[in-house]
Amino acid sequence: MAAPHSPSSLSRYLDGEFWKIRDNLREGISNCELFQRSSYDLSLDQIRDLTADRLHYAMKLPLMQRHLTDQVLGRKKKFLNRSVDISEMICSADMATGVKMGVVCGLYGGAVTNLGSPEQVKQFYAPVLNLAFTGMFALTERGHGSNARGILTEAHYEPATQEFIIHTPCEDAQKMYIGNAMKGHYAAVFAQLIIKGEPHGPHCFIVPIRDQHGVMWPGVTAFDMRHKEGLHGVDNGILIFDHVRIPRENLLDKFGSVSADGKYSSRIRSKGTRFNAMIAALTPTRLALTVQAMAAMKLGLIIAVRYSHSRRQFGPKDQDEVKIIEHQTQYLRLMPHLATSLALTFTVRYAARLMDDALSQGQDLQSNRPLQALVAGLKAYSTWANVVCLQECRECTGGMGFMMENRIPSLKCDSDVFVTFEGDNMVMLQVVVRELMTQYTKQFEDSIVTGMIRNWSSSASDRIRTSFLGFSVDKVGDLSFLLKALSYRERVLQRSLAARLYAKVEKNKEEFFSAWNSCLHHVTSLALAHIHRVTLEQFALAVQECQVKDDQDLLSKFCLLHGTSLVYQERAWYLEHNYLSPGASRQIRNQLLELCRSVKDDALKVVADFNFPSCCIQAPIAGVVNPRAEWGFYPLSESPVSQSHAQQRAMSKL
Amino acid sequence: MAAPHSPSSLSRYLDGEFWKIRDNLREGISNCELFQRSSYDLSLDQIRDLTADRLHYAMKLPLMQRHLTDQVLGRKKKFLNRSVDISEMICSADMATGVKMGVVCGLYGGAVTNLGSPEQVKQFYAPVLNLAFTGMFALTERGHGSNARGILTEAHYEPATQEFIIHTPCEDAQKMYIGNAMKGHYAAVFAQLIIKGEPHGPHCFIVPIRDQHGVMWPGVTAFDMRHKEGLHGVDNGILIFDHVRIPRENLLDKFGSVSADGKYSSRIRSKGTRFNAMIAALTPTRLALTVQAMAAMKLGLIIAVRYSHSRRQFGPKDQDEVKIIEHQTQYLRLMPHLATSLALTFTVRYAARLMDDALSQGQDLQSNRPLQALVAGLKAYSTWANVVCLQECRECTGGMGFMMENRIPSLKCDSDVFVTFEGDNMVMLQVVVRELMTQYTKQFEDSIVTGMIRNWSSSASDRIRTSFLGFSVDKVGDLSFLLKALSYRERVLQRSLAARLYAKVEKNKEEFFSAWNSCLHHVTSLALAHIHRVTLEQFALAVQECQVKDDQDLLSKFCLLHGTSLVYQERAWYLEHNYLSPGASRQIRNQLLELCRSVKDDALKVVADFNFPSCCIQAPIAGVVNPRAEWGFYPLSESPVSQSHAQQRAMSKL
Repeated sequence: MAAPHSPSSLSRYLDGEFWKIRDNLREGISNCELFQRSSYDLSLDQIRDLTADRLHYAMKLPLMQRHLTDQVLGRKKKFLNRSVDISEMICSADMATGVKMGVVCGLYGGAVTNLGSPEQVKQFYAPVLNLAFTGMFALTERGHGSNARGILTEAHYEPATQEFIIHTPCEDAQKMYIGNAMKGHYAAVFAQLIIKGEPHGPHCFIVPIRDQHGVMWPGVTAFDMRHKEGLHGVDNGILIFDHVRIPRENLLDKFGSVSADGKYSSRIRSKGTRFNAMIAALTPTRLALTVQAMAAMKLGLIIAVRYSHSRRQFGPKDQDEVKIIEHQTQYLRLMPHLATSLALTFTVRYAARLMDDALSQGQDLQSNRPLQALVAGLKAYSTWANVVCLQECRECTGGMGFMMENRIPSLKCDSDVFVTFEGDNMVMLQVVVRELMTQYTKQFEDSIVTGMIRNWSSSASDRIRTSFLGFSVDKVGDLSFLLKALSYRERVLQRSLAARLYAKVEKNKEEFFSAWNSCLHHVTSLALAHIHRVTLEQFALAVQECQVKDDQDLLSKFCLLHGTSLVYQERAWYLEHNYLSPGASRQIRNQLLELCRSVKDDALKVVADFNFPSCCIQAPIAGVVNPRAEWGFYPLSESPVSQSHAQQRAMSKL
Repeated sequence: MAAPHSPSSLSRYLDGEFWKIRDNLREGISNCELFQRSSYDLSLDQIRDLTADRLHYAMKLPLMQRHLTDQVLGRKKKFLNRSVDISEMICSADMATGVKMGVVCGLYGGAVTNLGSPEQVKQFYAPVLNLAFTGMFALTERGHGSNARGILTEAHYEPATQEFIIHTPCEDAQKMYIGNAMKGHYAAVFAQLIIKGEPHGPHCFIVPIRDQHGVMWPGVTAFDMRHKEGLHGVDNGILIFDHVRIPRENLLDKFGSVSADGKYSSRIRSKGTRFNAMIAALTPTRLALTVQAMAAMKLGLIIAVRYSHSRRQFGPKDQDEVKIIEHQTQYLRLMPHLATSLALTFTVRYAARLMDDALSQGQDLQSNRPLQALVAGLKAYSTWANVVCLQECRECTGGMGFMMENRIPSLKCDSDVFVTFEGDNMVMLQVVVRELMTQYTKQFEDSIVTGMIRNWSSSASDRIRTSFLGFSVDKVGDLSFLLKALSYRERVLQRSLAARLYAKVEKNKEEFFSAWNSCLHHVTSLALAHIHRVTLEQFALAVQECQVKDDQDLLSKFCLLHGTSLVYQERAWYLEHNYLSPGASRQIRNQLLELCRSVKDDALKVVADFNFPSCCIQAPIAGVVNPRAEWGFYPLSESPVSQSHAQQRAMSKL
């Protein structure tokens, strides 16, 4: 077992600046009885209660109390970087607890602190710290999930009583999938503000849902949605409002307020811009999703890599069977994902740092569209990477990987929803590209056509600033080659998309929606190309900054692998564009095979250095003893102690 | 709703020769209370009991009784073709019931009828028909799943008592994942036969596990493995034998028998060949898995396609939102899978026909290695295609697809195990390629090197027999082009693999296992290329044989789509081999986009013509009313009746 008290230098590097937070949480989780036992065999009610208990335990930790106090007081220094570390640790212990904490503190808390006044924060969020009540976040409606701008819930202002009347006018307006809906007390509800019949666009209101005794607020109905594929500990429900009256003070009024006599004022004139500003508050939550997906990947990889290093099957004639990690297909399936999980580790930290810098300089996130685009793209890339990774982990562990005791199935089922919630991935990719297109057209304000042509010719010489990395030789096997390749692809896709859209909209006068839709495959390719490039750059920088030579060498191999794998995936495109010759393309494949082979033994060190407590790993096939599933136990191959323990056990039993 | 009593001509064509069997089962399932309600909210014990009830109901159906009688009596005419149809229908109603039936009738029944004498069939299997007892199949051990040849369970013959002593000598010899282990009465146990200390290789023995009252047979222990990712209705367990005594008559003796005084005789001398012969009995079960995966795909696609045609989101400015099927990415994600499900429909029928022909001509399946390879390859291809398809269905239905009520999550979790059980897919692909390599080397018995060269030059002219299809024009958009392309890839991969292995083993004297392992990525590519080609050929033949012009036109589009999608996936390879120019490769992509767009509305007809009863579909988002999840209901877009019902409901509620 990776001993949590003697971390290696690599483990410290992977932990990053806030390793103390991580160590603190490792201890908190390991010492808590609530996290010692998996919960897949409980009833829905039991598992929800357990999740609530886990959440309360986590929020009461001194570290969390300090962190949430910072949130309440608006102390933003490196707040998100710390949040990211906390989120990863809590999610690794239990995904549902992490998601529920995300709902209460990230979404509800984020709405109040970002959209409300200091008084509102004091009234509606500060009491959450001592668990006086909890909150939920009600944006999505039955009829409008991805297209949140189209929500139908209404908030009519009544000057006589100085109240808002929150109302669900039709079935499509029901607030759906709302997390914490069956246990929480207040909801941050997005509704169309209407004053004297005049619409002012979506705003966020704090609506009481039920009191401490579970008595519902007049006019509020909460339906339990009950069984989902995963995240059973999160109580998702439907909220329906029947002329629910709330005080005027419950409108979170940072971006728009209503005076007692019903005058609307806002410092942002356009409804669309105002809504975007409000929604920008979601950006940190999206980054948290990336972190959650990354935690799931790492756990799956720890289990699959360890089992692959102890399970034996097939081998040379008349000799011992080999460890299954020795099979070419096995290491080819697992190693690229391990590289991706490392790339994400550094890229998440980069994105959090950018956000923290922006926030501590007093910037609003809504004005930082490149950052919003980066986070949206990372969310899509990481959650998909996780789905594919966990599926490979499940398959690479055979029948054992299908057993709940071995954790992979619940990781899969819990994290599957990440690809569609908090913004469907397909929509996230379009957010990325809208920003890339904006940047692109800004360059050529005089004439878009001349601009395009100029850009085309200048880029033909492929002057891309990767020199900061200090690599010079230009070969397939070099990181600089891979970085250039990813960058080239992004730029060509960007340029050609701009040209296509220009031709459709400007020249052929096609309706924009239809023009955009007919390019959607192109759009999604570009968005992912953008994120691929960023992840490889951030990984490369992290390699460069690593101070311990051995660690740097190790990370360097995984970084090369990540880049090689990204270029390999898209080699058809490179061949189509004559960027790779057929020979170079074959070389990329051989390089991928060779790199995967060369890191398969290092993989054991990397997964140990993720440094997750064994109560987070749980799986007996990863060497964690589980009295409920002794049959699944496989000792860690590097640990002679557990080896002899297993032999002892085997001998005593049979 | 697709009315089961007025099938279209396409529905009949998709049903095939035994449409009456399918109609009969549709009725049987629709009329049975046990299949009217999904079971995801039951406890493990409840769901297992329900599955047992469902199995009993299904086996008692007159149609099933006739079918099983044919199995007992060895009436093989078109037996497998009929089995395939039955399997698809039962699995569509409930995957666990289908799998459990597969264990009892396919695996246990298959072992007894294929490896036993007529007397043994009468004694050990005939009583299963009236449910006097049920059986299980115990091949896999803790230490040996994929590499079944290495099993460690022992069967010592004791002449004094004329008994075999079945014994589990170590933890690795425990029989693991055994389906029906907690409820069944007899097990077909594979064990190493040992007579007077001399090993004779694995043989199959019928071992009593428990009697009608649940009392265990002396020396037998069954551990419950309990919670899995899916298939909760199947009771998987571990069997441990402590010197369990069984009569001599319990050795299934078709391929090897032991006389009273302990003399071993077999008509097959080599242990390896003998084991292969026994394992060949598994071939039909593997085909059944393909059918089960296909059923899961079709159900997922019915749900996702219908929802995509009723759910609206985003649209042109100031206009109604569009149906989500109109989004380019949505149809691009779903349509190729729909084409694959059609290709599999026809390919499964082809493979079953080949097997039926072989069996009714009195051939043993073990002598028909090409057929074994085909079925192994189809198992791998189809179960992977299913995993990817269901994931897309889940994502394309957003949050709704994450709710258990909408069936996709349980389809995913139930069918996920297919990729690793009954032979891990990676092993299945190696079975395919071993056969392809055997065929290849047989051509050149004189000299492998000369042979290779001759073959290379002759194939340079690319003379491939696709003329039977009657296509002549040679363009990217033509089916004949696509067929040729798939065939070309298969042959080149085959040739180059042979050359690589030859160089490694013959010239460089590398150990075979290591040489093979270093080519494993190549091996798996070749195996899939082989199966791709077969599926497209069979689809093309089915189009040609379709008698109704409109249906033929429709199928023809999906066939082109299937071929285009297969070539598109591998376009990097074609570019590397200069088989596609960059321009042609881009044309393939445009063709894929255009074909997906052109069939997106036809898709509604196709999924209706799968003709599954609504109790199999279950999902409210596919227009099936579910009182437990009214909130999920989306009326079918083509059905004005359900439309008005929904409007009525919406109005009455709000």
